[in-house]
Amino acid sequence: MAILEFSTFYKNQLNHKPCQIPSYLSSSFSHSRKLNLKLLPNVSRAKITSGICCSIAPNEIQNPVVTPTDSTKSKPECYGVFCWTYDLKAEEKTKSWKKMTTVAVSGAAGMISNHLLFKIASGEVFGPDQPICLKLLGSERSFQALEGVAMELEDSLYPLLREVSIGIDPYEVFEDAEWVLLIGAKPRGPGMERAALLDINGRIYAEQGKALNAVASRNVKVIVVGNPCNTNALICLKNAPDIPAKNFHALTRLEENRAKCQLALKAGVFYDKVSNMTIWGNHSTTQVPDFLNAKIDGKPVKEVIKDQRWLEEEFTEKIQKRGGTLIQKWGRSSAASTAVSIADAIKSLITPTPPGDWFSSAVYTNGNPYGIAEDIVFSMPCRSKGDGDYELVEEVIFDDYLRKRIKKTEEELLAEKRCTAHLIGEGIAVCDLPAGDTMLPGEM
Amino acid sequence: MAILEFSTFYKNQLNHKPCQIPSYLSSSFSHSRKLNLKLLPNVSRAKITSGICCSIAPNEIQNPVVTPTDSTKSKPECYGVFCWTYDLKAEEKTKSWKKMTTVAVSGAAGMISNHLLFKIASGEVFGPDQPICLKLLGSERSFQALEGVAMELEDSLYPLLREVSIGIDPYEVFEDAEWVLLIGAKPRGPGMERAALLDINGRIYAEQGKALNAVASRNVKVIVVGNPCNTNALICLKNAPDIPAKNFHALTRLEENRAKCQLALKAGVFYDKVSNMTIWGNHSTTQVPDFLNAKIDGKPVKEVIKDQRWLEEEFTEKIQKRGGTLIQKWGRSSAASTAVSIADAIKSLITPTPPGDWFSSAVYTNGNPYGIAEDIVFSMPCRSKGDGDYELVEEVIFDDYLRKRIKKTEEELLAEKRCTAHLIGEGIAVCDLPAGDTMLPGEM
Repeated sequence: MAILEFSTFYKNQLNHKPCQIPSYLSSSFSHSRKLNLKLLPNVSRAKITSGICCSIAPNEIQNPVVTPTDSTKSKPECYGVFCWTYDLKAEEKTKSWKKMTTVAVSGAAGMISNHLLFKIASGEVFGPDQPICLKLLGSERSFQALEGVAMELEDSLYPLLREVSIGIDPYEVFEDAEWVLLIGAKPRGPGMERAALLDINGRIYAEQGKALNAVASRNVKVIVVGNPCNTNALICLKNAPDIPAKNFHALTRLEENRAKCQLALKAGVFYDKVSNMTIWGNHSTTQVPDFLNAKIDGKPVKEVIKDQRWLEEEFTEKIQKRGGTLIQKWGRSSAASTAVSIADAIKSLITPTPPGDWFSSAVYTNGNPYGIAEDIVFSMPCRSKGDGDYELVEEVIFDDYLRKRIKKTEEELLAEKRCTAHLIGEGIAVCDLPAGDTMLPGEM
Repeated sequence: MAILEFSTFYKNQLNHKPCQIPSYLSSSFSHSRKLNLKLLPNVSRAKITSGICCSIAPNEIQNPVVTPTDSTKSKPECYGVFCWTYDLKAEEKTKSWKKMTTVAVSGAAGMISNHLLFKIASGEVFGPDQPICLKLLGSERSFQALEGVAMELEDSLYPLLREVSIGIDPYEVFEDAEWVLLIGAKPRGPGMERAALLDINGRIYAEQGKALNAVASRNVKVIVVGNPCNTNALICLKNAPDIPAKNFHALTRLEENRAKCQLALKAGVFYDKVSNMTIWGNHSTTQVPDFLNAKIDGKPVKEVIKDQRWLEEEFTEKIQKRGGTLIQKWGRSSAASTAVSIADAIKSLITPTPPGDWFSSAVYTNGNPYGIAEDIVFSMPCRSKGDGDYELVEEVIFDDYLRKRIKKTEEELLAEKRCTAHLIGEGIAVCDLPAGDTMLPGEM
C-alpha cells in the first residue's frame, strides 16, 4: 500500500477554507497543522495537483506524484529526542538486544495509557532486551496532552525506548505495528442508550480495523480495552479481513485478576495460590467468573471454600462492583490496575503459560470446543507457548449453573452483534438488546 | 522503644469530649476512629488508668500496663489480602528471595504515589528477588483514597508485594521502615508567601522527623519529594537526631533527568550518551544544572555543544520551565516522570554507580569538599557502591560562572534555614528571603 506524506502548513489557521480533497485520498491534520494526504488502499496511482486546499498558496505545493512502491513509507511525527536514529547493533551494550518492536496505543493521552506507556517503556512488559518503538494515537482535541506524554517519556530516560511518535491518524500511527492496544473510546454520556454507545464506538473501531488492515504488520496482535470491548473487537476484526481474526483480543484480564484476589481473600491465602481462573463471555455485568474450574493451591475452589452461597451470590457481585467501589473510594477509575492487567495480558501471550494453568482473554469464537456461538468475541480460557499466539483450553468442565450463565452472556453478545450489523457488513442493524444496564460500574 | 497499641473505639464520635492524654503519651486516631496511645521515647514505663478519654466508657478500658519490651509492637492497619502471613522460606519459588524490605510512603493517595507504588510493587525498583512491605501514609481526608490505592494494589497480583498497610499516623506507618519516601506536602495556596509555605510544610516534616527518630529502622534512607524539599529534608533530619544526617535526601533527580534529555536533544544524540550531570543546590529556580562537568559521549559538553549562549541562557531555563510547559500541555503535573525519577534515585543508591559517572541528590553538606556552607541540604554529585550509602564526588571543576550561581542557590537555602529556625531548634525564625518567587513552575 502506498502512503503519500504530502505535507504543507496552514499559514493562517483561522482563515483557512475547507479543503477540496480528491476522493482517492484520505486526509488528516497532524502536529503543527501539517496536512497529511494519503492514497486510499484501493487506489494504485494518482497525481496530485496544486490547489486542492484553497487556503494553501499554489507555490507551496510541488505537484508530487504518488507511486505505490514499498519504499514509500509514511513518516509519523517522531517526538523530540526520539527523532534521532540509533544504531543498536553498533554498541556493545545494545547489540545483543532483540529487533525493535512497534507498539501502537490509542487513547494514548488518557489515564490508563499514562500508566501503561511507562510500564512498556521500562521493559517490564516485553523484557529487558526488547527495544521499543511507541506510536501514540490521540485526537485533535487531545493532541497537546499527547505531546505532554511524549515529553514525560523523554524525561524518563528509559534506555529501551528508542522511538516515540504521536499522531491523530490511525493509518499513520498503526503502520507496521506489531502490537496495537486500543484503549481509546468515547465514554457513555448521561442518558445514553447502550445501542447508541455501541454505534458511536463501533464506528471508531470499524475505522481503526480498516486502518489496521491497510497498514499494520500482517501478524499484529490487537488488544481492545475501550468499551464495549467485545463487540468493538468484533467490529475491528471484521473490518480487517487480511489479519487473522485470532489475533484480536478484548480485555477481561482485570476481572480475572480481581476474581483471583477475591478468592484468595475468602480462602485466606496469598493471591499467587489461585490458578485456572476463567472469565467467560462479555465484558459486562453478564460476565461469568468461573469458580467451578478455578483452583486454590491446586485444589478445586469448592473444596477450599465451602460457602456455596458466597460463591454463587457474592463472589461475582464483588468483582462486578469493584470498579464502582474504587470510583467511590478513590474518586477516579482504576487506571493503574487496568494498566497492570493489560501488561499481564501481553505477558501471557509472550511467555509460556505455566503447565496446567491458563489465562482469560476474549477472543474470536470460531472453532471453539465449548459449543459457544461462532463469530463473536467471547472471553474463554487460553494457553500460550509464548509466541504471541494462543490456543483454547480443552480440559474444562461445566455444570448446569455455569452453562446457564454462559448462555446469558452469549445472548447478550449476539444481541450486541445484531445491533452493530451495519458496521460488520451484515446489512441493517436490528437492535433488540435486553432492557437493563449491563455496563460494569466504574466504567461509564 | 516501647509503643503501646492501646486501642478502643469512640462509640459516639460526634459527642466525644476532648481527650485528657497524660504527658508521657502521644495520641492519634487511626482508621475506624481507633484511638492509639503511644509511650514517648524518653518514657520507660507507665501505667494507664481508665478515664483518660472522657468519652470512653470506663468498661472499655482494661487498665493496660505499658512495658518497654521489644515485643510490644504497634500493629499497622494491614489491608485485605495483605493481612495474611506468608512464609517465603517455605516455598520453592520464593525461598531464595531476599529478606522483606519495608518501604513507607507519605502522600500515598496522590498522583505521584499512584505511579510510584506500582513500580515498587512490580520489582522494577528493588529488583526481582526483593519482597516488599508497603506502608502508606495518608491524611484523615484522604483515607478512603488510600483504601482505593490498596485495593488496586491487591488487584494487581504482584508476587513480590507481600504486605500493605495504610494509616494516618507517622509513628505507626514509619515503624521499622528501611526506606521512607516523603511525597506528601501541602500545596501552595493562591497568594501564599514562600515563608508561609516553609512554615506549614516545615511543621509536617518536623513531626515526621520526630516519628522517624522514634520508630524507623536506625539505618533508614529518607527521600524527601514534597516541596520545598531541601529545607523540608533539613527540618526532618534535625528532628531525627538518632538517624545519621547522611541518610536524608531531597529529590533533584527529575531535574537531572530533564537536563540530560535537553543536552541530548541539543547535541542530536540519544539520552544515554549524557553522563556526569550535576544539579547543584536548591530544588527551586536558583538550582544550577552544571554543563561544565557534564559529558556527552565521554567528552565535555562544551566540546560537543559549541553554542555557549544556549548553554548559559536557554538550557537552564528549559529545565526550569519543563514542569510548567507540561502542565500547560497535559493539564496535570508531571506525576509519571517524577515517579520515574524517584525510582531512579533509589536505584542509584542500591546499584553501584557506573565507573567515572555520578548522580545528583540533595544531601547534608557537612564535610563537603566544595566549600559549600555546612548544615544545609544541597544537591551535589554523588556516587554509590550500591549499599544504600553514597559519597560525594571529588573530581569536579569550577569556573567563576558556576561558582557565582552556586553561591546564589546557597544563599537561598541559608535564608530558608533562617526562616525555619523555630523548627530546627535554632531559636526564633528570622525570615529575610529575597523577594521574587523561586518556586519551580508546575509545582505550585
